[in-house]
Amino acid sequence: MNLSWLIERCATINGDGTGTIDGDIRHNWKQVRDRIACLAAGLRSLGCENGDRVAILAMNSHRYFECLFAVPWAGGVMVPVNIRLAPPEVAYCLNNSGATILCVDKTFLPMIEAIRDQLESLREIVYLDDADIPAGFHGHESLVQANEPMEPAERAPEDLSGLFYTGGTTGLSKGVMLSHANQVTNTLQTAMRFEMQPESRYLNVAPMFHAANMIGMLNATVAASAHVFIPCFDPEATLRVIEKERVTNSVMVPTMINMLVHHPKFADYDLGSFRRMLYGGSPMPEAVIARVQEQMPGVTMVQAYGLTETSPILTCLPPEYHVFEGPKAGKTRSAGQVVAGTQLKIVDESGKECAAGEVGEIRARGPNIMQGYWNMPEQTAEALQGGWFHTGDGGYLDEDGFLFVSDRIKDMIVTGGENVYSIEVENALSQHPAVQSCAVIGIPSEQWGEEVHAVVCPEPGEEASAEELIRHCHTLIAGYKCPRSISFRDEPLPLSGAGKVLKRELRKPFWQGKDRQVN
Amino acid sequence: MNLSWLIERCATINGDGTGTIDGDIRHNWKQVRDRIACLAAGLRSLGCENGDRVAILAMNSHRYFECLFAVPWAGGVMVPVNIRLAPPEVAYCLNNSGATILCVDKTFLPMIEAIRDQLESLREIVYLDDADIPAGFHGHESLVQANEPMEPAERAPEDLSGLFYTGGTTGLSKGVMLSHANQVTNTLQTAMRFEMQPESRYLNVAPMFHAANMIGMLNATVAASAHVFIPCFDPEATLRVIEKERVTNSVMVPTMINMLVHHPKFADYDLGSFRRMLYGGSPMPEAVIARVQEQMPGVTMVQAYGLTETSPILTCLPPEYHVFEGPKAGKTRSAGQVVAGTQLKIVDESGKECAAGEVGEIRARGPNIMQGYWNMPEQTAEALQGGWFHTGDGGYLDEDGFLFVSDRIKDMIVTGGENVYSIEVENALSQHPAVQSCAVIGIPSEQWGEEVHAVVCPEPGEEASAEELIRHCHTLIAGYKCPRSISFRDEPLPLSGAGKVLKRELRKPFWQGKDRQVN
Repeated sequence: MNLSWLIERCATINGDGTGTIDGDIRHNWKQVRDRIACLAAGLRSLGCENGDRVAILAMNSHRYFECLFAVPWAGGVMVPVNIRLAPPEVAYCLNNSGATILCVDKTFLPMIEAIRDQLESLREIVYLDDADIPAGFHGHESLVQANEPMEPAERAPEDLSGLFYTGGTTGLSKGVMLSHANQVTNTLQTAMRFEMQPESRYLNVAPMFHAANMIGMLNATVAASAHVFIPCFDPEATLRVIEKERVTNSVMVPTMINMLVHHPKFADYDLGSFRRMLYGGSPMPEAVIARVQEQMPGVTMVQAYGLTETSPILTCLPPEYHVFEGPKAGKTRSAGQVVAGTQLKIVDESGKECAAGEVGEIRARGPNIMQGYWNMPEQTAEALQGGWFHTGDGGYLDEDGFLFVSDRIKDMIVTGGENVYSIEVENALSQHPAVQSCAVIGIPSEQWGEEVHAVVCPEPGEEASAEELIRHCHTLIAGYKCPRSISFRDEPLPLSGAGKVLKRELRKPFWQGKDRQVN
Repeated sequence: MNLSWLIERCATINGDGTGTIDGDIRHNWKQVRDRIACLAAGLRSLGCENGDRVAILAMNSHRYFECLFAVPWAGGVMVPVNIRLAPPEVAYCLNNSGATILCVDKTFLPMIEAIRDQLESLREIVYLDDADIPAGFHGHESLVQANEPMEPAERAPEDLSGLFYTGGTTGLSKGVMLSHANQVTNTLQTAMRFEMQPESRYLNVAPMFHAANMIGMLNATVAASAHVFIPCFDPEATLRVIEKERVTNSVMVPTMINMLVHHPKFADYDLGSFRRMLYGGSPMPEAVIARVQEQMPGVTMVQAYGLTETSPILTCLPPEYHVFEGPKAGKTRSAGQVVAGTQLKIVDESGKECAAGEVGEIRARGPNIMQGYWNMPEQTAEALQGGWFHTGDGGYLDEDGFLFVSDRIKDMIVTGGENVYSIEVENALSQHPAVQSCAVIGIPSEQWGEEVHAVVCPEPGEEASAEELIRHCHTLIAGYKCPRSISFRDEPLPLSGAGKVLKRELRKPFWQGKDRQVN
């Protein structure tokens, strides 16, 4: 199994069919295959050898897509970098992965120029835009034009196809190692949920570095469907492109879907082409499900749950369970049932498997489980202890085998579909001299599900406003990770017997009278 | 990946749903899981260790199904034996595989009793029927009842799940070694073609030892659908059970489908539940496609092509190409396009890849390719030379990536969906004293596509009628392999320069004015 074979297959079985649509630029699958094969040859000419890491930091585009496939085609390992990271975090990913080549677009050029001299392993930069190519950079288009197509590099199924950085409970971002077999198998495991055909059109609107769009993008490729790109999510631009390009499928988070159906110009656009929406990150509030069903009656929905470490999909909730009446009602807050070929179990603190309805840690094993964390043998051993991946997520299975992700064992906040590890925010806050100690929690938000809130015990004699502390965080970590609000506290943080901060107590006043969002 | 996980998943996600229906016997998926887990424990109690071969020789039934899964659950390797083999061939499979346990039903009891003392490795026999259990045999039902359920044996994805004997071009049947990962992955690769849901009902009507039913059966299990069983194909019994049990899916060969739609009582049965028919072995004549579409308007068809060695599906022709007009017409004689995750190429005699339209040998690589032939390292090395499986089938890809299986490089006859290797028939015929030399070819048959015909040069001074020679064959090989007709020839067989029989010349008079069936 090899990611490159998927592209070759598209060129063989749907060669004249549309492969990519990006504004006015269109390529059929034969052209896409040729462009990728040429770009891969270009990467080889820049020194990419089998197993070398090639990072990508860019907004969504057909060129991002070409990079994603050209890297494994050339034998390399893709490292798609989170576009919302702060400069020190981007530098960490590039250095930790040891990336020798970076593909970057104009949006991120200033950031890369600012941190260029901190990038230890980086040797070559490919520029994804046509105009004003910086000196010393290689133009994406010139690499495509200047090279003869190469045959895909021979890689074994268990060879790495990509490193995907996730936040970490220890505060250090970890490079999740996925193999060709991991990514291809999870695509096959979920193909029957995507239901795409060569005639389908998949909208890449969630960020392309993210595991959620990755699996949608791979499914569209397995189906030899067309890919449509917009640089990033913007509600009206999304409505417009769905109408214009007759989009049939996409992957979004509930927050995005909610913004679409509530958009004042929703009715101005014809979304009749849309067929299947996959969403993840959290369950969809019932009101939003009902609204989608009312406003987009041709659309069916599938919820998916998983982690980057699971390539990423572990469970799916099929369309027929998005109902409020009848024998299949009552499951909309569930993450669905395990995909075929993978095993799931819920385990209590003593390591015993839980009965239906009992909450424990969600664990999984199967062909979609990562190879480990890059250069972190201890964390890898811990995460894969006993041959099962320990998700760190709490949950239970009901009598029908539906998974309910009831809490996070990891200290994590889910805001607008993004995972924020409290420890990363606490690390940033703690670097300010006015912070003696702090704890970061999720509090309810109408718009984002949860939002990031910090409780700060000030350092005696120092002073800083909430605004100043938030500004300070912005210099260190991605904007979506920064606290939206801060409360100051004179007494020490409440601690457990073991000396851990009792976050439950800190959360209590915010969540009183509200259900904490499941998942 | 493990076959047992598929059964556990059915019990988790559709535990109260119907698992198996066999006449009046019904079990839900929880019961099926428990019965398999108990039967597996029974097999362990009979000495089955990890990797031990357990053969099955029986007509279709829910107990056959339980055996198929209990063997890998116990850590063993299933060996489903072709029910049409003659006694010496059955003995060969059992001895060659080294099976220590055999599961047999009453239909095959006389055969097993007759060859019992030739079975070198066999130690224990499980009897699939309830009445008159022979002394020394173990009753299937008592094994289920007498044992506590065991946990599935831990087996690696690349560990063998089964040995599947196929006829061989060398005349010796070969045990195709498939792993758990081979079988599960090919199921995932084809799930979008089967389109089964938990509510679907799959009819096991093609023989359960056969790769064709195996992949249908696995797909129904991945979907947690219900399995319906009838002992073997009988047109009216098939029509009756489709109506009675509201069957939605099945896998058949064109000959079977043809017999259904031409059955005089076709109109007496309500087949409105039927949704999706997968067929293989050969393309379906256009007249039969048209007739199915007219008589069963709710049914869509998928053609599949592959070999036991490819677990088995390599290509699929989706429903939308079963048309005679419009842009998708002209493909009904094609075997379709390669499944996702697998690579296919056509190679000429010099080893060069063929251009579209050029005939060569069909080769494939990917996760569904067998591990090799059991105890045949040379044949394995030859079949998998260069990392690609050499199918021995000739064919070409058209401009749209559709495979046309245009001829067999192997000397093989396809009759009623069964492969007959000429060499096996020639070996049998040659053992008769009246046969000096012979050549076996396929000649056109309205009913079977091809039928087996022998050209015999008699031994001077000996005499035998066609009837006697055919009777002689029946004592050595399966009935479907025996010649239907024999022509005698006084001059020697036509030979090529290299001394090979020029079968093309022998076939010519029979096929004049007729298109030889593609595939």
